[in-house]
Amino acid sequence: MTRTLDTSNRVIASVNLLAGEIVDRIAADPGRYRVSVTRGESGELLIDAGAKAAGGIEVGLLLTEICMGGLGRVALIPAPGASKWPFWLTVSSNDPVVACLASQYAGWSLQHEKFFALGSGPGRALARVEKLFEELPYSDNARRVTIVLEGDTPPPAAIVAKVANAAKVEASDVAFVYAPTQSLAGSVQVVGRVLEVALHKAHELKFPLEHIIDGVATAPLSPPHPDFVQAMGRTNDAIIYAGRAHLFVKGPSDAARELAKNLPSSNSRDYGRPFAEVFKAYKGDFYKIDPSLFSPAEAVVTAVETGETFRAGAIDEKLLDASFGG
Amino acid sequence: MTRTLDTSNRVIASVNLLAGEIVDRIAADPGRYRVSVTRGESGELLIDAGAKAAGGIEVGLLLTEICMGGLGRVALIPAPGASKWPFWLTVSSNDPVVACLASQYAGWSLQHEKFFALGSGPGRALARVEKLFEELPYSDNARRVTIVLEGDTPPPAAIVAKVANAAKVEASDVAFVYAPTQSLAGSVQVVGRVLEVALHKAHELKFPLEHIIDGVATAPLSPPHPDFVQAMGRTNDAIIYAGRAHLFVKGPSDAARELAKNLPSSNSRDYGRPFAEVFKAYKGDFYKIDPSLFSPAEAVVTAVETGETFRAGAIDEKLLDASFGG
Amino acid sequence: MTRTLDTSNRVIASVNLLAGEIVDRIAADPGRYRVSVTRGESGELLIDAGAKAAGGIEVGLLLTEICMGGLGRVALIPAPGASKWPFWLTVSSNDPVVACLASQYAGWSLQHEKFFALGSGPGRALARVEKLFEELPYSDNARRVTIVLEGDTPPPAAIVAKVANAAKVEASDVAFVYAPTQSLAGSVQVVGRVLEVALHKAHELKFPLEHIIDGVATAPLSPPHPDFVQAMGRTNDAIIYAGRAHLFVKGPSDAARELAKNLPSSNSRDYGRPFAEVFKAYKGDFYKIDPSLFSPAEAVVTAVETGETFRAGAIDEKLLDASFGG
Repeated sequence: MTRTLDTSNRVIASVNLLAGEIVDRIAADPGRYRVSVTRGESGELLIDAGAKAAGGIEVGLLLTEICMGGLGRVALIPAPGASKWPFWLTVSSNDPVVACLASQYAGWSLQHEKFFALGSGPGRALARVEKLFEELPYSDNARRVTIVLEGDTPPPAAIVAKVANAAKVEASDVAFVYAPTQSLAGSVQVVGRVLEVALHKAHELKFPLEHIIDGVATAPLSPPHPDFVQAMGRTNDAIIYAGRAHLFVKGPSDAARELAKNLPSSNSRDYGRPFAEVFKAYKGDFYKIDPSLFSPAEAVVTAVETGETFRAGAIDEKLLDASFGG
Repeated sequence: MTRTLDTSNRVIASVNLLAGEIVDRIAADPGRYRVSVTRGESGELLIDAGAKAAGGIEVGLLLTEICMGGLGRVALIPAPGASKWPFWLTVSSNDPVVACLASQYAGWSLQHEKFFALGSGPGRALARVEKLFEELPYSDNARRVTIVLEGDTPPPAAIVAKVANAAKVEASDVAFVYAPTQSLAGSVQVVGRVLEVALHKAHELKFPLEHIIDGVATAPLSPPHPDFVQAMGRTNDAIIYAGRAHLFVKGPSDAARELAKNLPSSNSRDYGRPFAEVFKAYKGDFYKIDPSLFSPAEAVVTAVETGETFRAGAIDEKLLDASFGG
Repeated sequence: MTRTLDTSNRVIASVNLLAGEIVDRIAADPGRYRVSVTRGESGELLIDAGAKAAGGIEVGLLLTEICMGGLGRVALIPAPGASKWPFWLTVSSNDPVVACLASQYAGWSLQHEKFFALGSGPGRALARVEKLFEELPYSDNARRVTIVLEGDTPPPAAIVAKVANAAKVEASDVAFVYAPTQSLAGSVQVVGRVLEVALHKAHELKFPLEHIIDGVATAPLSPPHPDFVQAMGRTNDAIIYAGRAHLFVKGPSDAARELAKNLPSSNSRDYGRPFAEVFKAYKGDFYKIDPSLFSPAEAVVTAVETGETFRAGAIDEKLLDASFGG
């Protein structure tokens, strides 16, 4: 069973049950996916997909599908066109608002003493503690939850309790899957946000979310880097300088045209150099970076009610090379 | 069980059982696929994948796999080369004659009073009421059938009865999956015919079907249009001006060379402008359109018994842009 | 259950159990995959995927996944860039040493009277009779094995016994899947070695195998040829003149740079003409061919511990066309 009922008794997909199927598949075959699977002190399921465990690209693809609550498809494919970077991710979802914003977006601030992480994944859609959920009608009510963490340590007991309490489940029904940005799985997992970043930017631009009905996006797999800032920079640059998203939207042409025009990262004052440099220029203060930078390089928007398609932005292979290093 | 026996007791795949597995998957998770699943007045299963239901690209991919009787693989991938249209479908089948002609081809005329649709999908291979089946030895004998309809309404009871009777099953063992051409799922489902169109053209050219042993094809996902003629035009143009098919055939080189030469749409007198214009020029009389227009833009044919490969035609991005609008 | 324990009691994936799931899937649906499934005189399972049976591209993809012991993903996708050859294979594995060297490499010499074949696939990792296994710690202990043969006949009873004895299983627990190089499935299966060939070359270059942590590669599907030498030539040329591999490695930059530089086939003295010509020039003596020719055309190597990426070699479409014939 991977479905539930919403408040008006409609059958809707449960992002936690769908993602849970993928979690179970990984947990049943740790050798195959090169992860380590343990239970934490509160009974929570812990899957290390790239910290002490080797992990890899394949489990990174599954991590992305978990992040999207099972409502997305992710594949690794040869580069479109003549890119020097030979393999790219393709991410699609026929329910992009739920998959990307209610589930995949890394929006749940999980802090306890020195531990800090932005939780992503379907558990967010059950806890619904973020302000963003005031605008998202989707709510899950599964009896198990999964949270994905970009980091190299499992969460402390206090964070496990926080998630379990917010989700009203036992700690043993909570799964945490984690991999640091520097790992292969971590790289894939962040680049796999190329569609989510487009959705989030659309939201920032105040485009009505309920008008976004489908989406597909692609971005190059970024080569891992052992330094966190460089690794983070590369995953962001994969999207900012080489991401391409196609959104299908309802509503008038004008709104679709504006969305296409304003969506690309080139609209940002911070566009034009590798993300790690931008980050350092702001002395590591993430919140000083122009938020409009976080967006795919190129946007294609089809207004399905008029049949028109609008496009803006372009992939910049030179900046991509500057970021990826050669 | 997804197999059956043919008249000479050989084990063959059952297109209705294979497609039925996909139908069951969709029906079990309507929230995930954004479809509505109901039973009609005769007990038939009805899946709305894009009329009143939202549907989307993903269920469109599954619709294509249903159309192909489970004997094809369909994927959405980034555009090959430098196309402005960023995502394309890839369709393959190791049994293209059965998948495309015995199952996917929209050849069953289903009319009752004001209702008219061309039924496609595996139910055709069980009913076998079309003239085409005189040349197709494949016959299915499953106890359930699926018919795909390009349209925005479920079939009336008389059509349900017609299908059930022709297939010699109860109405409750018949599934209808439908989506209008204007919807995302409908767009995908029609563009997903890029390989079928190549097979059908080969048949029109009197190439022996039993010599076609494998096939792969690709075409761009067409942006939906609210107007039926425009929507239909775009799905056809995706194939006519940007479809690329690779067929693997037995038999002599000469026949393969002729097939490659004559297959591309550019052989048609009606080639050269968007399909919607052609359609209007003939005042909407479909049967006045040169049937040889319905074909991929580019054909590659490998004669496996000689090792030679022949090719003709080319993708025309300008005409594609003219059709897709920008 | 698809896992086992290694000598230190760690849970590892069993390549024979993972591949066995794919074998069972094919054996359950011979009509769908166009294979013939029989039991040989010693009770061994025999799957003909392209000798007398039609087979095809799809079962060829599954054959490749069997060869890789279920530890790889294989897909057929439209050509990257502007290649005349429209469909390419993408092969990835998050455990490339086990998938490609312990399982996929065709290294088990199976000879009896006039029968000769190089066995590949997961059965090798259980028998472990090749010298190569002195350097590969991986060992499988499943109670069933699968061997893939590039050839047009099933193995004689003596070979079945040899495999069963080496693997310490009953003959009825051995599966042989075979397809000749000239068949579609055979073509796919050999081109599907594009990542394996990169791994093998890395090994020849004495790059430490335990440093190779992930890999992805792509190469064009070669058109079959009825002549064995031409067919073999094309499958090799697909890799030698158009293969592209991206390896992710641990260890110092220098080693990664050297690996990238030395990996491409262009380092070989025999580079520069179709493989069938090279083979004939050496009068069919395979062992006179410079072994360094067997490698992808282009290598990209990322040193994950320094974040640097090195590349060398290039795809040569002209030589590819010369080999594939037009």
